[in-house]
Amino acid sequence: MPVRTPDPDPGDHGDEDGAIDPLDAALGRSLPSDSATPAWLSDVELAQVRRRMPILYVEAIPVRTDGTGSVTEVGLLLRATPMGEITRTIVSGRVRYGETIRDALFRHLENDLGPMAFPLLPPQPAPFTVAEYFPLPGVSPFHDERQHAVSLPFIVPVTGTCEPRQDALEVTWMSPREAASEPVAAEMEGGRGTLVRLGLASVGALR
Amino acid sequence: MPVRTPDPDPGDHGDEDGAIDPLDAALGRSLPSDSATPAWLSDVELAQVRRRMPILYVEAIPVRTDGTGSVTEVGLLLRATPMGEITRTIVSGRVRYGETIRDALFRHLENDLGPMAFPLLPPQPAPFTVAEYFPLPGVSPFHDERQHAVSLPFIVPVTGTCEPRQDALEVTWMSPREAASEPVAAEMEGGRGTLVRLGLASVGALR
Amino acid sequence: MPVRTPDPDPGDHGDEDGAIDPLDAALGRSLPSDSATPAWLSDVELAQVRRRMPILYVEAIPVRTDGTGSVTEVGLLLRATPMGEITRTIVSGRVRYGETIRDALFRHLENDLGPMAFPLLPPQPAPFTVAEYFPLPGVSPFHDERQHAVSLPFIVPVTGTCEPRQDALEVTWMSPREAASEPVAAEMEGGRGTLVRLGLASVGALR
Amino acid sequence: MPVRTPDPDPGDHGDEDGAIDPLDAALGRSLPSDSATPAWLSDVELAQVRRRMPILYVEAIPVRTDGTGSVTEVGLLLRATPMGEITRTIVSGRVRYGETIRDALFRHLENDLGPMAFPLLPPQPAPFTVAEYFPLPGVSPFHDERQHAVSLPFIVPVTGTCEPRQDALEVTWMSPREAASEPVAAEMEGGRGTLVRLGLASVGALR
Repeated sequence: MPVRTPDPDPGDHGDEDGAIDPLDAALGRSLPSDSATPAWLSDVELAQVRRRMPILYVEAIPVRTDGTGSVTEVGLLLRATPMGEITRTIVSGRVRYGETIRDALFRHLENDLGPMAFPLLPPQPAPFTVAEYFPLPGVSPFHDERQHAVSLPFIVPVTGTCEPRQDALEVTWMSPREAASEPVAAEMEGGRGTLVRLGLASVGALR
Repeated sequence: MPVRTPDPDPGDHGDEDGAIDPLDAALGRSLPSDSATPAWLSDVELAQVRRRMPILYVEAIPVRTDGTGSVTEVGLLLRATPMGEITRTIVSGRVRYGETIRDALFRHLENDLGPMAFPLLPPQPAPFTVAEYFPLPGVSPFHDERQHAVSLPFIVPVTGTCEPRQDALEVTWMSPREAASEPVAAEMEGGRGTLVRLGLASVGALR
Repeated sequence: MPVRTPDPDPGDHGDEDGAIDPLDAALGRSLPSDSATPAWLSDVELAQVRRRMPILYVEAIPVRTDGTGSVTEVGLLLRATPMGEITRTIVSGRVRYGETIRDALFRHLENDLGPMAFPLLPPQPAPFTVAEYFPLPGVSPFHDERQHAVSLPFIVPVTGTCEPRQDALEVTWMSPREAASEPVAAEMEGGRGTLVRLGLASVGALR
Repeated sequence: MPVRTPDPDPGDHGDEDGAIDPLDAALGRSLPSDSATPAWLSDVELAQVRRRMPILYVEAIPVRTDGTGSVTEVGLLLRATPMGEITRTIVSGRVRYGETIRDALFRHLENDLGPMAFPLLPPQPAPFTVAEYFPLPGVSPFHDERQHAVSLPFIVPVTGTCEPRQDALEVTWMSPREAASEPVAAEMEGGRGTLVRLGLASVGALR
C-alpha cells in the first residue's frame, strides 16, 4: 500500500505545547515559553534535527493474553493520514529529552489507547528487536521518509478497554495469524507488518 | 551454606498420587491406578531416571513491579529441609509428560505461592537463562546432588497475595539489592543465589 | 508433507554404543558394558522413558553471516527417512545425562555438519524460543509422534565447510526469504518450518 | 571514583571532519563542506542537540570465548580523561545519521580496538539491555553529565589482536569474576560497572 504521507508519530504534536518536561520537573524549573525551554524543540528545530541525527522511538504492539500468558489477540490501530488514506499502525512515538524509555512507552500507550487500556509494561528493558527506519527505502525493512528513526519495540499486554484518542480511528483486535497475514501487512505503514511478525515470533505466536 | 539434603522440588510429591495427567485428560483416558498409567513415574522409577536422563524443570522468581513495569521487590521462599535446616529458594518444579511449559509454571507457582498470588506469566516462551544443575559441584554454578536437572527460569510478576503451601514456610519480599546480596545468596540452595542475580540482571534491576 | 516416521534424532543412535559419557569420564569411571553404565539408556529403556518424561533436546539452525553479523544464508539438512522419503530438517538431538547444553550442541553440530563446519556457538545460554514437541498434533506448533520433547533452539553461524554425516544427505544453503517460504516450510518435519521462522525473526531476517 | 570530565565518546571527534557519510554516499552526493552537509553536526550544534534530544549510542563489551562459546575473558579499556585521570570503560560511541546499528558498532569497535581485533558481531539485533544515561545522577544506574544518551549494548567476541587507537591506552583482559568485582566497577565511568555485570549475566558468566 503506498503511503504518501507517513506519519507514525502524531502523538508527538503535543510534545511542544504545554506538557511538563520530566527533566524540568525534576529540576523544579518552570516553563515560561517554548523558546526559553532548552529541552523542547520547535517544529522547525525538530525538522532540522530529523535530517541530521537518528531519532529515538519506542513502539508497542498491544496484545491480549490468556491466563497462562499466551498471546491470543493483537491490537492494530487504524489511522487516517492527512491525505485521507486509512492505514494500520502500532503504538509509536518519540522519546523526549530526560524521559525514561518506560515513561515514553507509557505516555504513548495512553495517548494511543486511552487512559483505560491498563497496559502491563514488561519488566525487561530489552526490546524484542531494534527497528531502524531510514528515509531511503531498501536500506532495512523499515522506512520513514521524514527521518532516520531507531525504534525499540515491545510486546505489551493490555488488560482494559482501548479508546483511541487523537487521530487513531480505532483499535482492531485480530488473531495472531491474521495480524501476520499478507493482506494486513500490506496495509501497515513503514514496514510495520514485518515488525508485527518479529514481535509475534518473540512470543511464539507466529506460525 | 551447606545443604545436605537439597530438595528444591517438593511440589512434585503430588505428581504421582492422583492428579490428572493433561495428556491422559486430552485422550479421554481414565486413570485406574498408577501402575497402569504409563505417563506417571513411581518414586523408584523417578529415582532411576534421575541418574540417567537430564530432568526438565521450570523455575520462577516472583517479583512485584510498579506501574511502569520496573521490578521493585523480589519474593524468596523460606523452606525447611527434611533435616530441619532453613534455606531460601525460588519457585521450582518438574515438567510432566504431556504438560506445556506454561502449565508447569502455573502449577508450580500455585503450589508454592497459593491460589491468590495471581501471577502474570510472560508472553515470551524463552527463559532469561538456562540453569544446568549437575550432581557434581563445580561443573556449573548450579548443583543438585539428586540429579542432572535443566531448568528454564522466568521472572514472574505476582499481583495478589502469596500464601505458601506445602513445605514453604513463607515468602519474604525484599529489594532487588538485598536479594542480590552476598548474605542472601549464601542462604540459597543449589546456587540459586546466582540464578536470582541473573534474573535481576535480565530486568535491569542488578547494580 | 506427511511424515510417517519422523526421526529428527538420528545422531542419538550413537549414544548407546561406546561413546564416553562425560560424567563417567569426570568421575574416572571405566565403561565395561552398556548394562553396567547407569548413565546410558538401552533402546528399550529409552522407548519407555520417552512415553513418561519430557525429553530434553537442543537444536541449531546453521547460518552464514556477513562481516557485520547479518544473516545472509540458512543451511537446511536434507534427510531420507527410513521410509525413503526426503524431508528437510535442522540440527537436532538429545542432551545426555551429565552433558552441558553447549557440549550437546557442539556434538550434534559435528555429527550433522561434519568436523570442518567450525560452528560459532553463541555466548548467550538462552535459546531464541522453547520448542515443545508433543506426540499429539495440535497441542503446539511442533509435533513428534515418538515422544514429548522440549527443545532449546539456537541460531549458529558456521564458518567452515559442511559435510553431513550419518543419514543427512546434504546441507542446502538458501536465502532467509526462501528458508521462511511456504514450500520449504511444508517440506520440514515436525513443524520445524515454524521454528526456522522464529529463529530468523530473532535475528531480524524475517520479512 | 569521581569522574569530573567523563568522555566516553572520543571516537566521535572524527565524526565531523571529513569522513564519508553513508547516507550521502548512498545518494552519490559530494561533500563540499561541513556547513553544506545537512547530515553533519558542528561541535556547537552537537552541544545544543545534546541538551534537547536523547542521543543514540551503541556500546560493546569485548570478550574472549572458548571453543563452545563460553565467555572466558572480558576486555576493558583503560583511558586517560582530559584531566589526566585514568578510568576504565568499554567500546562506546554515537550512531550517525543514516548509519545502521551494525555499521556503528563495527566502526566504534575498529576505532577503539584497532583493525586487527576481528570482532564477531552477533546475528541478533536486540541488545542485552538498554542503558539510559541521564545528566542528572540517580535517575538510572547510568550517568553522563554531557547529555541524555540511550545506549544499545552488545557482548562482542573478538578473535584477533587488540591495538587500541585514539585515547584508549590499553585493553586489559580479565576473568568475568574480576570484571564484575567491586574494585573494577568503581573504576568504570558513568555506571558502566553495572553495565558490565548485566552483560556478563546475559551470557551466564556472572556468579
